[in-house]
Amino acid sequence: MLSPLDPLLRPAPRADIAPFIVMDIMAEAARIEAAGGRVVHLEVGQPAAPAPATARAAAARCLEEGRIGYTTALGIPSLRGRIARYYAETFGFDLSPERIVVTTGSSGAFVLAFLALFQPGDRVAIANPGYPPYRQILKALGCEPVLIETGPETRWAITPETLLAEHARSPLAGVLVASPANPTGTMMTGEALAALIAAAEDAGIRFVSDEIYHGLDYAFPAATAVAVSERATVINSFSKYFCMTGWRVGWMVVPEPLVRPVERLQQNLAISVPTLSQVAAEAAFDGREEMEAVKRGYIENRRILTSSLPKIGFDRILPVDGAFYLYADVSRFTNDSLAFARRMLAEAGVAATPGVDFDPHDGRHFIRFSYAGSAADMAEAVERIGSWLKTG
Amino acid sequence: MLSPLDPLLRPAPRADIAPFIVMDIMAEAARIEAAGGRVVHLEVGQPAAPAPATARAAAARCLEEGRIGYTTALGIPSLRGRIARYYAETFGFDLSPERIVVTTGSSGAFVLAFLALFQPGDRVAIANPGYPPYRQILKALGCEPVLIETGPETRWAITPETLLAEHARSPLAGVLVASPANPTGTMMTGEALAALIAAAEDAGIRFVSDEIYHGLDYAFPAATAVAVSERATVINSFSKYFCMTGWRVGWMVVPEPLVRPVERLQQNLAISVPTLSQVAAEAAFDGREEMEAVKRGYIENRRILTSSLPKIGFDRILPVDGAFYLYADVSRFTNDSLAFARRMLAEAGVAATPGVDFDPHDGRHFIRFSYAGSAADMAEAVERIGSWLKTG
Repeated sequence: MLSPLDPLLRPAPRADIAPFIVMDIMAEAARIEAAGGRVVHLEVGQPAAPAPATARAAAARCLEEGRIGYTTALGIPSLRGRIARYYAETFGFDLSPERIVVTTGSSGAFVLAFLALFQPGDRVAIANPGYPPYRQILKALGCEPVLIETGPETRWAITPETLLAEHARSPLAGVLVASPANPTGTMMTGEALAALIAAAEDAGIRFVSDEIYHGLDYAFPAATAVAVSERATVINSFSKYFCMTGWRVGWMVVPEPLVRPVERLQQNLAISVPTLSQVAAEAAFDGREEMEAVKRGYIENRRILTSSLPKIGFDRILPVDGAFYLYADVSRFTNDSLAFARRMLAEAGVAATPGVDFDPHDGRHFIRFSYAGSAADMAEAVERIGSWLKTG
Repeated sequence: MLSPLDPLLRPAPRADIAPFIVMDIMAEAARIEAAGGRVVHLEVGQPAAPAPATARAAAARCLEEGRIGYTTALGIPSLRGRIARYYAETFGFDLSPERIVVTTGSSGAFVLAFLALFQPGDRVAIANPGYPPYRQILKALGCEPVLIETGPETRWAITPETLLAEHARSPLAGVLVASPANPTGTMMTGEALAALIAAAEDAGIRFVSDEIYHGLDYAFPAATAVAVSERATVINSFSKYFCMTGWRVGWMVVPEPLVRPVERLQQNLAISVPTLSQVAAEAAFDGREEMEAVKRGYIENRRILTSSLPKIGFDRILPVDGAFYLYADVSRFTNDSLAFARRMLAEAGVAATPGVDFDPHDGRHFIRFSYAGSAADMAEAVERIGSWLKTG
């Protein structure tokens, strides 16, 4: 029998990071479904569609060819070249493939970026609300995540003013932003992004741009930090636009002097990125037509939610700019979004994510809806929630 | 133009870890082959055979079924169950699937284990010579790798005496051993392993057992730390015995109180392990007959090398117990194994790995041969090296 007091069994304090609460909601939804109940899923941050047929076919061919060995640590050269071409095609920006590092999802990229850019104790600014693993990975790697509050006046983004005010309080080593953002679904304009990068770099603050939701922009075209500064580190992934979550493949664009340090880290921490996923990712770029059809589905879902949610009482919604998230203020219903989400799941059969995952300060007033599912699911969710609120 | 003096472009000091020198040898071999030359590969630590047909078929079916989404952070439940059953089948040990964490290769497991077990500044003992990423990952995560010299008198393993002597000098937080080991190919007997675990745990030192080469044991059966102590952390992988290097899938067995901390780390640092690889891994267990045939090939390769290398002058070889490595003392030929390996590649067309990757103290006197290739390659390598040594 193991004793919980056994000093050999105490987790290291740095492992004391928060879980993803959305996982608890997903587990509860799975229990309801296992018991024969119906759940409409608006909690999961992943597309319902599969990877492009081109990607799946390339993986199938690779499987038939035999051994699937390690690749070079920086990634398959033709994939790095293809990613570089994406910047030329999308932004007219001529990027050297040498600056591209293929990673095990954006998750792998965050670990590499934080190790290469920041020392233990470094303060790194992130927007609140924001993607929870930013905080937790930074903490696990000894850095201090510094939450900068955002609001409607700045489209829920960090600005030069809020960044430099925090930097004046106590120096920042870095700042990380996402546009489109999770959970808010908001975007920074190209001007806002460029201004923030300039302010950060002038102040000696390293800039990291999480562009994982690029391609899923509705309000206006998303801007890339790649085209703004050669000193910014950019993180992207095949998970969202290309519907390849479970493949775990993404990439970074790193400043040229950081390529070799990042390569050494990847050699040692990962050896290489899953080979089949890299092969599929390269072919995914040939499946953009299919992915544009998926995107049109999100646009329809967005139309359904933005037109119908206000009618059932969700009338305070953040700008639904991009990604596939809608972030709604539910303070007229509750002061406890976690309890609200649990009740909504149990009583209305609709799963959504409470804001407490994303915002330790005011998340109890918000719910995130993901509209990565089908239009029928969106309509059913609105109807179920509407009836529930009426009777509840 | 970027200035190398730009403070924004300096890698964080913790990213200043060593590269894998074997990568340089591999790159040079690729250059020779691209120029039409012939290279016999004994440098690469990966099987030439593909994953079991059962694994590839399962991946192909999964590809056809559609979306490949995230899995739960700890891994697909049926895979965790199958891994638990492996311990019952192989060691007669009844292990709860709850203690199994599926990881992105053993690489992913090391990162999770070191974060969950050790704090920055913690001293962790590892054998010298040893697998280079142990040192580099520990360093990148703020720990201090402590090299414990090993030699023939202890079959190149850490012993209770050498461990406790180091612990007396300055307290150790952990010790990590591998059996079979890389680069030495040596193994610890069950008694040696049990004695070391007991000594470590009695002294309050956490025990990590890297069992990635399990299944590839020739001298005697490999013992698992799982059966010795519920407080040990065990790391394994599908890369070696199951020939699944590029799939990046492995597992850990963790003490029960550490499951939840490791789960939270994985949720945040990786989200989940590549799904196709998990599906393939589960089916790999049904392909053991195919893998036993591959293993018989290694046994033949081992026979060829151990009988013929001494005849051409490599007469000081470590016990060739397991894995697919043969570690040879080349001090009668050179004091610079890196230069020797480069010359052997350029002049004899045989790639092998200099010991400097594995042993900062005495690696200049050693070369590692990998016998994961074909029997024909082994014979050709010996002939080429023999002729070269005669004429050189």
